[in-house]
Amino acid sequence: MAGTDSTLDTVPETAGSRPAVILVEPQLGENIGATARAMLNCGLDELRLVRPRDGWPNPNAHAAASGADRVLEAARVFDSTEAAVADLRRVWATTARRRDMVKPVLTPRAAAQEMREIAARNESFGILFGPERTGLSNDDVVLAGAVIEVPLNPSFRSLNLAQAVLLVAYEWFQSTPQAPPREEILAGARPATTEELATLFHYLEQDLDTAGFLRPIEKRPIMVRNLRNIFLRAGLTETEVKTLHGVVRSLSGRRNRQPS
Amino acid sequence: MAGTDSTLDTVPETAGSRPAVILVEPQLGENIGATARAMLNCGLDELRLVRPRDGWPNPNAHAAASGADRVLEAARVFDSTEAAVADLRRVWATTARRRDMVKPVLTPRAAAQEMREIAARNESFGILFGPERTGLSNDDVVLAGAVIEVPLNPSFRSLNLAQAVLLVAYEWFQSTPQAPPREEILAGARPATTEELATLFHYLEQDLDTAGFLRPIEKRPIMVRNLRNIFLRAGLTETEVKTLHGVVRSLSGRRNRQPS
Repeated sequence: MAGTDSTLDTVPETAGSRPAVILVEPQLGENIGATARAMLNCGLDELRLVRPRDGWPNPNAHAAASGADRVLEAARVFDSTEAAVADLRRVWATTARRRDMVKPVLTPRAAAQEMREIAARNESFGILFGPERTGLSNDDVVLAGAVIEVPLNPSFRSLNLAQAVLLVAYEWFQSTPQAPPREEILAGARPATTEELATLFHYLEQDLDTAGFLRPIEKRPIMVRNLRNIFLRAGLTETEVKTLHGVVRSLSGRRNRQPS
Repeated sequence: MAGTDSTLDTVPETAGSRPAVILVEPQLGENIGATARAMLNCGLDELRLVRPRDGWPNPNAHAAASGADRVLEAARVFDSTEAAVADLRRVWATTARRRDMVKPVLTPRAAAQEMREIAARNESFGILFGPERTGLSNDDVVLAGAVIEVPLNPSFRSLNLAQAVLLVAYEWFQSTPQAPPREEILAGARPATTEELATLFHYLEQDLDTAGFLRPIEKRPIMVRNLRNIFLRAGLTETEVKTLHGVVRSLSGRRNRQPS
């Protein structure tokens, strides 16, 4: 949108990376527009859409954006959540209800502190938001390293999509870059990309299928999810992913395979 | 609304008074409904309306309230801002722009701290929000003891009315002394013991030795350490350790082995 390119020029915290906001299967264009507005209120401008119900672009989104059109115009559309997060080093999933999944659960405020550490290293990261009615599927949540849950009135927790985005983005904006970083556990190593992890999972699960481990078939999805969750939680480096490729290849006795 | 009277019963912070939300000359019913929803999300239920443009009640408000109808039904309508705040001991005014007025200007977070002190004394208090386009008039702001200004992207500060209410109400709700801090949720699972981890490492490394992976021998200690580090960092549960035993056993094709 002409004339608004400098919208973020005066945002105090332009140093380092900023979170991408990823809406998975958003239903209402109005909510996408209100999301763009809430993002720009908090200095965020990278919007990703996974299979928006009413297609894209959507005129209703622009009507609700109240001037945040540049966020909508730069939005990218993806066919799957996996594709939408493939290039991100770290992903948070927002959920309204507890999942039977082993993941750290953070408040938006605590998550913002973690994000600042990643932003300070200029790494790419993003936050997943689910569809209006149902929220994120478990398959989407498992892609995330941690879950964000907004502390709200337990008797009335249903938050509008754009309101949820606003609260998380607001805490990001309020958090100070000078907060003491948590101890650097990666010691200079490059964190694995989501795509590198996906390749590891692909080979591991293929070998486990061959070995007959992922059975019965109806339990395969949950077994796969639990397994991926372990490795996602570990925050693997590129080198560690290579090591694990070697471990899987070595154990399964298929030395000739050439992953990654 | 029948059956929802207990909505606030389980709100953790029912002790003491809570802020009334006062919308001055709100224009859109949708925004009044979304305000009610945001209020109830944060445990607030006292809504006051000063000269709502489209009269009251307003069906559009109910459509946007998503179940927070009891807040709308209990809303009281006033002819003037003075009348709406007459019984309140202390009033905050939300503004998007600075006024030529000597008043303390607080962030929502700082204001919430002040409100907690008043709530602890069980005194009545409220927060003023202005009309969608223009915000509060100076005559309204002057009724308040202090001003609340939300820190936002200075190049894009225009916040939807219900979004403004949400942010202020959210900070109120987060300021509860007993607000849940960051939690590490294991979804009821028991963390693995050091011994269980040691057994897992023992079998994994034994199989990798057999497969010839941990070579050359002089590099074995560091390879073992790096591998263990991955799993130690993941914070495994007892169940996950069992799963990984299964994975290793399955990949290495030794089904007859009986670990732990």
